[in-house]
Amino acid sequence: MVQVYFDHNATTPLDDGVLAAMMPYMQAQFGNPSSRHGFGRIARQAVEEAREQVANAVGAHPSQVVFASGGTEANNLAIRGMSAALQPSQVVWSSVEHPCVAKTCQSLKTQGWAMRPLAVDEAGRFDLNDLAQALQVSTGLVCVMLANNETGICQDVAEVARQARAAGAWVHTDAVQALGKVRLNFAALGVHAMSLSAHKVYGPKGVGALVLDKRVELIPQMTGGGHEKGLRAGTENVPGIVGFAAACGLAIGRMEQDEQRIRLMRDELEAGVALLGGTIFGSSPQRLANTSYFCFPGIEGETLLMALDRAGFAVASGSACASGSTEPSAVLLAMGIEPELARGAIRVSLGRGNSMQQIEEFIRVLRIELERLRALSAVSVM
Amino acid sequence: MVQVYFDHNATTPLDDGVLAAMMPYMQAQFGNPSSRHGFGRIARQAVEEAREQVANAVGAHPSQVVFASGGTEANNLAIRGMSAALQPSQVVWSSVEHPCVAKTCQSLKTQGWAMRPLAVDEAGRFDLNDLAQALQVSTGLVCVMLANNETGICQDVAEVARQARAAGAWVHTDAVQALGKVRLNFAALGVHAMSLSAHKVYGPKGVGALVLDKRVELIPQMTGGGHEKGLRAGTENVPGIVGFAAACGLAIGRMEQDEQRIRLMRDELEAGVALLGGTIFGSSPQRLANTSYFCFPGIEGETLLMALDRAGFAVASGSACASGSTEPSAVLLAMGIEPELARGAIRVSLGRGNSMQQIEEFIRVLRIELERLRALSAVSVM
Repeated sequence: MVQVYFDHNATTPLDDGVLAAMMPYMQAQFGNPSSRHGFGRIARQAVEEAREQVANAVGAHPSQVVFASGGTEANNLAIRGMSAALQPSQVVWSSVEHPCVAKTCQSLKTQGWAMRPLAVDEAGRFDLNDLAQALQVSTGLVCVMLANNETGICQDVAEVARQARAAGAWVHTDAVQALGKVRLNFAALGVHAMSLSAHKVYGPKGVGALVLDKRVELIPQMTGGGHEKGLRAGTENVPGIVGFAAACGLAIGRMEQDEQRIRLMRDELEAGVALLGGTIFGSSPQRLANTSYFCFPGIEGETLLMALDRAGFAVASGSACASGSTEPSAVLLAMGIEPELARGAIRVSLGRGNSMQQIEEFIRVLRIELERLRALSAVSVM
Repeated sequence: MVQVYFDHNATTPLDDGVLAAMMPYMQAQFGNPSSRHGFGRIARQAVEEAREQVANAVGAHPSQVVFASGGTEANNLAIRGMSAALQPSQVVWSSVEHPCVAKTCQSLKTQGWAMRPLAVDEAGRFDLNDLAQALQVSTGLVCVMLANNETGICQDVAEVARQARAAGAWVHTDAVQALGKVRLNFAALGVHAMSLSAHKVYGPKGVGALVLDKRVELIPQMTGGGHEKGLRAGTENVPGIVGFAAACGLAIGRMEQDEQRIRLMRDELEAGVALLGGTIFGSSPQRLANTSYFCFPGIEGETLLMALDRAGFAVASGSACASGSTEPSAVLLAMGIEPELARGAIRVSLGRGNSMQQIEEFIRVLRIELERLRALSAVSVM
């Protein structure tokens, strides 16, 4: 059975045009960009053109783009690399960061850093009063995401960056979920480092980038052959990098058009969810247009996910990366949601390939599955 | 102009069968292995089957295979991850290691480790007397490569591991150049960790693995969503991992057959080089069958590389990763080769796609280019 895919915040299908752009570099043009012969020079040119495309997509200069193996590596490189260049002081990260930011910030404790998670309000937005309070202590590094992977909530990173810079801190933003969904301008954001990933924007898995203010010192976390100006060693994943650039180009070109279509579908979905007795988490206008995070009180998210899976719909019950865990979502707990309710969380994240017809069919199926699960739970209570 | 590719130690063309194995995971089966729905489960199964194939190819258990973004990451993860679990003592690495091992070992100095490069003899083989001497000092970590990327010289890593283990050290081997060219058996080698890369064995760029003795403690160098049993975070590069496994399968299946054909071509090449007045570096029987490293006294390697490039042959003048540098090869200097001679180094590394006819044509072209360069140099001396 072919499922309907409603989990685009976990990963996206590779765009046909992106695959087409990658193919030459998986076939005849297979050279190592470090080689000096013809094969090598062609590969080098492809990587440098891709660097320009990625930079253009996010308002950065090509020299600011460091290619890496994905968003997780980019986040780790930023946090570990920047902190290693500083005397340990305080690291601040928001309590809704992705685990690859939160855990990496927490790992600095063994190097003598003071830990300072930043509170969010009930709407999931950074608490700027708490930020002001945090910055009264000498702070080396502040890590704040642009858009949340679970709720889709978008944050005022520029304002955080302004305050953090004024306090003398370096600022990193995880823009993995924002890329391709909202306009990104590295210079305008005022951050020192920004992480990107290809496979969230219809590009290949295994490639991402750290965009870096060159005035910041970064201690490389992989050393070797001097690639990426010494900041990230390892033979460049040429097809992956070319695909990443092509995906960025497509994302920028289609952003408004995709956003409008997808927002209409998301609104239709949420109207249906509300009619079926669902509660929407973080239902604010400052949210990615593709993401809906909700629950049906009394129904476990995991159980509903499995029921929908059998009925032909691929959804998430939380951050894909954290799955395997049965703990309620840390993001929802940080927003003050009761654990009972948080355990019911279901995330639908829409994409280019989805249609209004799929939304209607989903609501129809959801109604049936909810009735069945509620009947089962009524029986088990008796 | 399509060049003849003689630089397989830098990178290899992606095998058509490998690409075919990857394609489903770049198209319909694009799921994130951490997702619980159908797309995710199919991706998870692909990754776990690939893990088995890679493990089988190197005599390891699937649970010992940690996927990473390539050989450089695997080497960094081993060295940084193992050393971080130990009290700083002495780190020993051979003086012919790849920069991603040598520089990473050297980076441990800032963490209080004592530096101890291991000498090689004139044939480029580890000096076991020097090893014995090194191990008289308390040693936490020993890093020795299986086959050298420049010379192709193969080492008795099992004997080094035996002595290092007896001295209480953990042992890591970089098997990136050995994979697919010599039989590898992780258990028989007796090392604690072994690095592999896909793109050197007709697999995709951007993927590799660390094979790890589970009794060794490894501190992860990328933290996040708990992937790879917590040892290496980041969404798995599913097509890359599947391609890596397919490439391992092909390499093992074809090893003897490829080796015989390639050795004949290499011998023919070296006979021609000798007739033209060339000197072969590290010309020992304990050498990868595909690699030839030589010079013509008085001719700069870089100059000859460029001349051959224009004449249609892609060769290297040293380690591709270190290119951009005009320093003579550190590997050759460690073998006691004079800098004058080392600056002339040209590496030919043959592969599956090469033919005896290409070797004959290469020798013909080489003769012409040498005559031209010698005439030029005679003129410039006058």
